[in-house]
Amino acid sequence: MTVRAAVAGASGYAGGELLRLLLAHPEVEIGALTGNSNAGRPLGTMQPHLLPLADRVLMPTTAEVLSGHDVVFLALPHGESAAVAEQLGDDVLVIDMGADFRLKDAADWERFYGSEHAGTWPYGLPELPGARAALEGSRRVAVPGCYPTAVSLALFPAYQAGIAEPEAVITAATGTSGAGKALKPHLLGSEVMGSMSPYGVGGGHRHTPEMIQNLSAVAGERVTVSFTPTLAPMARGILATCSVKAKPGTTANDVRAAYEKALADEEFVHLLPEGQWPATASVYGSNAVQIQVAYDENAGRVIAISAIDNLTKGTAGGAVQSMNIALGLPESTGLSTIGVAP
Amino acid sequence: MTVRAAVAGASGYAGGELLRLLLAHPEVEIGALTGNSNAGRPLGTMQPHLLPLADRVLMPTTAEVLSGHDVVFLALPHGESAAVAEQLGDDVLVIDMGADFRLKDAADWERFYGSEHAGTWPYGLPELPGARAALEGSRRVAVPGCYPTAVSLALFPAYQAGIAEPEAVITAATGTSGAGKALKPHLLGSEVMGSMSPYGVGGGHRHTPEMIQNLSAVAGERVTVSFTPTLAPMARGILATCSVKAKPGTTANDVRAAYEKALADEEFVHLLPEGQWPATASVYGSNAVQIQVAYDENAGRVIAISAIDNLTKGTAGGAVQSMNIALGLPESTGLSTIGVAP
Amino acid sequence: MTVRAAVAGASGYAGGELLRLLLAHPEVEIGALTGNSNAGRPLGTMQPHLLPLADRVLMPTTAEVLSGHDVVFLALPHGESAAVAEQLGDDVLVIDMGADFRLKDAADWERFYGSEHAGTWPYGLPELPGARAALEGSRRVAVPGCYPTAVSLALFPAYQAGIAEPEAVITAATGTSGAGKALKPHLLGSEVMGSMSPYGVGGGHRHTPEMIQNLSAVAGERVTVSFTPTLAPMARGILATCSVKAKPGTTANDVRAAYEKALADEEFVHLLPEGQWPATASVYGSNAVQIQVAYDENAGRVIAISAIDNLTKGTAGGAVQSMNIALGLPESTGLSTIGVAP
Amino acid sequence: MTVRAAVAGASGYAGGELLRLLLAHPEVEIGALTGNSNAGRPLGTMQPHLLPLADRVLMPTTAEVLSGHDVVFLALPHGESAAVAEQLGDDVLVIDMGADFRLKDAADWERFYGSEHAGTWPYGLPELPGARAALEGSRRVAVPGCYPTAVSLALFPAYQAGIAEPEAVITAATGTSGAGKALKPHLLGSEVMGSMSPYGVGGGHRHTPEMIQNLSAVAGERVTVSFTPTLAPMARGILATCSVKAKPGTTANDVRAAYEKALADEEFVHLLPEGQWPATASVYGSNAVQIQVAYDENAGRVIAISAIDNLTKGTAGGAVQSMNIALGLPESTGLSTIGVAP
Repeated sequence: MTVRAAVAGASGYAGGELLRLLLAHPEVEIGALTGNSNAGRPLGTMQPHLLPLADRVLMPTTAEVLSGHDVVFLALPHGESAAVAEQLGDDVLVIDMGADFRLKDAADWERFYGSEHAGTWPYGLPELPGARAALEGSRRVAVPGCYPTAVSLALFPAYQAGIAEPEAVITAATGTSGAGKALKPHLLGSEVMGSMSPYGVGGGHRHTPEMIQNLSAVAGERVTVSFTPTLAPMARGILATCSVKAKPGTTANDVRAAYEKALADEEFVHLLPEGQWPATASVYGSNAVQIQVAYDENAGRVIAISAIDNLTKGTAGGAVQSMNIALGLPESTGLSTIGVAP
Repeated sequence: MTVRAAVAGASGYAGGELLRLLLAHPEVEIGALTGNSNAGRPLGTMQPHLLPLADRVLMPTTAEVLSGHDVVFLALPHGESAAVAEQLGDDVLVIDMGADFRLKDAADWERFYGSEHAGTWPYGLPELPGARAALEGSRRVAVPGCYPTAVSLALFPAYQAGIAEPEAVITAATGTSGAGKALKPHLLGSEVMGSMSPYGVGGGHRHTPEMIQNLSAVAGERVTVSFTPTLAPMARGILATCSVKAKPGTTANDVRAAYEKALADEEFVHLLPEGQWPATASVYGSNAVQIQVAYDENAGRVIAISAIDNLTKGTAGGAVQSMNIALGLPESTGLSTIGVAP
Repeated sequence: MTVRAAVAGASGYAGGELLRLLLAHPEVEIGALTGNSNAGRPLGTMQPHLLPLADRVLMPTTAEVLSGHDVVFLALPHGESAAVAEQLGDDVLVIDMGADFRLKDAADWERFYGSEHAGTWPYGLPELPGARAALEGSRRVAVPGCYPTAVSLALFPAYQAGIAEPEAVITAATGTSGAGKALKPHLLGSEVMGSMSPYGVGGGHRHTPEMIQNLSAVAGERVTVSFTPTLAPMARGILATCSVKAKPGTTANDVRAAYEKALADEEFVHLLPEGQWPATASVYGSNAVQIQVAYDENAGRVIAISAIDNLTKGTAGGAVQSMNIALGLPESTGLSTIGVAP
Repeated sequence: MTVRAAVAGASGYAGGELLRLLLAHPEVEIGALTGNSNAGRPLGTMQPHLLPLADRVLMPTTAEVLSGHDVVFLALPHGESAAVAEQLGDDVLVIDMGADFRLKDAADWERFYGSEHAGTWPYGLPELPGARAALEGSRRVAVPGCYPTAVSLALFPAYQAGIAEPEAVITAATGTSGAGKALKPHLLGSEVMGSMSPYGVGGGHRHTPEMIQNLSAVAGERVTVSFTPTLAPMARGILATCSVKAKPGTTANDVRAAYEKALADEEFVHLLPEGQWPATASVYGSNAVQIQVAYDENAGRVIAISAIDNLTKGTAGGAVQSMNIALGLPESTGLSTIGVAP
């Protein structure tokens, strides 16, 4: 099978990571690359690490340019995907790496994004219960947010096993690429290096309703999420520290068993041996998720910690994994569980 | 007043930071410097940033060397301070920058440190209720741990105002200097740069009982603390994200008022204007603490976040501040609230 | 003496560093702070590390605002200082932290900056032969560029001693703050962290003629400079590696003697003991310069390496040092040779 | 073809990188892994990024363990490879990633390494004139040092074209992984982050004679090399800034033409378009070399700058490339020119 893929938004970090993965994908041929404000420029000036594509010239993001492909990846600002997707045929696999089609609840969308809800597509986090089946054969995929990927994978085993109270307290550290290439003062190297800082504290981060949606579905009851993201002095990676109160009677063995059972058959999500903790460096550039869990007896809490690469499993790798499933390819085609370390 | 100060453990990071501050202290004259394994070496080879002391030769850590000073700072491995302190007179101000005399509960000590409890000294976190009075005129001071400094200052206003439930969930990111100069593989630059990783998860970190002690005293009831420390790719700084459930009926205004009231008169602890969040870079090398607090209505939780320099306010600056109080000097003598940024 | 100082360009990195130093200067009272595009904003939102000035509101950069001070520091884009300086009285000490008045040769200026030459002011690098005398009592000072500071101090001893051929080959690594707060893609944290890259290669960097001017004056002959700047993944610091061919007959002893003699009486420039090499971390936030020199016998070359903090000795510290000299204060008033490390 | 490969020294950075590449190599099956001091430990505790090998247990480094493979990679301390290699048959491909067999001149070896010279093997830098032919079919390969790889590739085009004087002045910045996992104080994250520092200045670095050997062979005359390595705050990457005086009559066009001609047919070495400069981030984790060259007319010098990943093209990638050639596989099998960025 040769899959011809177009990428809208090829000049950004998500688009660049996607191209890095597609270049290594044995079944994919890279077609049109677009980027509105950068149309007409060769990719080599913006993505100098993608040597094989250095001379490719970016096109404008139009339906005409994107048509004629088997798969179209959209790495666009939120609110722009629906209009593009509508103009592509129903037989084209459209994979939206933005937020537009992740939420089921229109009111949530409107509250957090301030615009009209575009709809809901099958959710590209195959490891969640039921998600894989919804992706098989689908021609529309909503790629999850990077934080919800890290958090949902860290906590769903506890909710699936019924050992966690429905109030999650989460702190996550992200590398700066999570904020994209936007030219904002707080993202300058001089500001970022040597500094940790929080943002979106108190419930305001747009990824919060997505976490609530995922965890509530698994728990079978409404889960509240108190989420604090922090910006760390590194380019890539998310370390999510997730804390939930254990239901009465839960033991340390119950906790371990819940995670072993939930993650046993997953290729990309690894429960580490006891005593070993995840580090974002270990999953750098890979589609792997490393998870460890502990039971704090004094506090009566379960602490689950996951490490992902926000650009790979958190964005572009997750997108490729979902593409594989949607097209009936082996799920791990073109993807790796091996990090680039140190 | 000229205060003659000796420093035991001058070759480490805590000792080096202390010397940096003492060099700038108008009332202090630096006396003997000791360092057991490095005795005989000039300080310039180990602390090349302390140019005025480059030619000072380290002495062995003995009572004889340390005697004859007004103040003796101990930056020693835990378990070693008591023996040294006993040999110094009761009229000498002894400031222990290690853990030995921080805990009141001998059972806590023994459980977390595995040795006999040496005792309890006045606790050098002057901003906590009652702490300043205990330090005035004292000749023994236990400098708090770096994490308990960041966490206790972030949360005591909520407990003092009675708006927080007694279960605290805390994630903190620290710079690598918090682990000292120990030659361990996970502290190598190659491992640390570009990586976030947790350690001591699930209640095992030795700073946990110290946080419980501080917060319980303010709350007037036993506070449980679930504490997860993480190692961040930076040399200095702690960002502590502290989450507590609000007591029923608490409003966002109550939260803000509690923090404004508790911190209004403090020179070193600053509640930032609403909308501005702390960053560790802003307190780099300074004795300042920057704090912000939010009320997450959906989750019903108070999230208080503090940024400190772990070596300054978290260790050596806190030690100097306590020295000033103990000796009757103005509390901020020789200390700064100005960070070195960017 | 109380010196009232105004700072034009207080929102940038140079202005911020200057304010950090002026806050610690015992003879200075900080007056008006200006910043054109940021006029009306409180300084705390832009320089959160300068807590004592958090509530100061920036004014527009006009002669009216800047008048009535003893000293006016200009941290403005190049080409803008002359117009402001002209409107200030001749009795006001004007210290230009930009490039406008550094070069003596109008043709050099026009070739590298593309505008008309504004003139030449006494050059604020007191350690160069003759420079200190020109600064005493002056009411105009041109602060050197950060690279010329590091390079001129590393190489002038060799030229002063007549042991170096007039062709210097220099590679320097700078922290990102050297590029200022400009919002450019290559300065984003995601791009900078984990990466070294050169720029301005082949003679194009604007600091090159300034180095040639300084070194030629000491050598008594025209020195060519081949200068390659590189951007390093750190916020502050310059490490300048300077290589010159030794004149025939030069010995390793001659080299060492030349540096010892030239630097013996300087407070801020330190020749390290043999075997110890400079590191930028050792001068972080300080006005110190650390220098080491080696003689490579096989290649017949002298390699002199200097480390400075580009914002302190390289910009704002150098400015304060020159202010002290111009006003007749002790040269090191308010300045430190102690770095913030690790 | 299935090639069975053993790796001696699998717990270090070079060994880990090699395993990362071999895992992705379609013709290689990974056999025995050894590591003397770590024998008996599972690889997952030392190389947590190599998930597929996490349960592999390290064996002792003996001829018995290493025998029975088609290829044996040696990532051992210098001086140890000869004894191991002698015990393996002449039909086994032995690839030494250490220094033992790189130098042709026994006196050079003895001067820089202080032990007896073990011999000289075909040199694994295929892009150098004549090197590829010597590797074809060979059963012994000496992998070049990381610095000599970066420097030789940057400068050989100038010497091949006869446009460069035989005196090279080189400054290179390396990531900390170049120093390996040795537990030395100056390699701690606290020391490295935020700091640039030189080492081995003045001709003492062991890679210097290797550079001289390579460049002299191409130039047809003895080239002197003045080499200054510096340690940069990043885990991976080398940026080599190489400066040579141009021979009389050389023009900028000559320089460009020399590099275009020399590098036109190379898969891994890329001369960037004019105006674009290499960055180590662009080659992160890849086997690519990015090169740019400039002619500084005023100084009459050619400045060639190369960026490599020290662990990939600089060590393990170069080893795999040479293995491919020696075994008659396509040279780029299992290797990528795509960096992991940002």
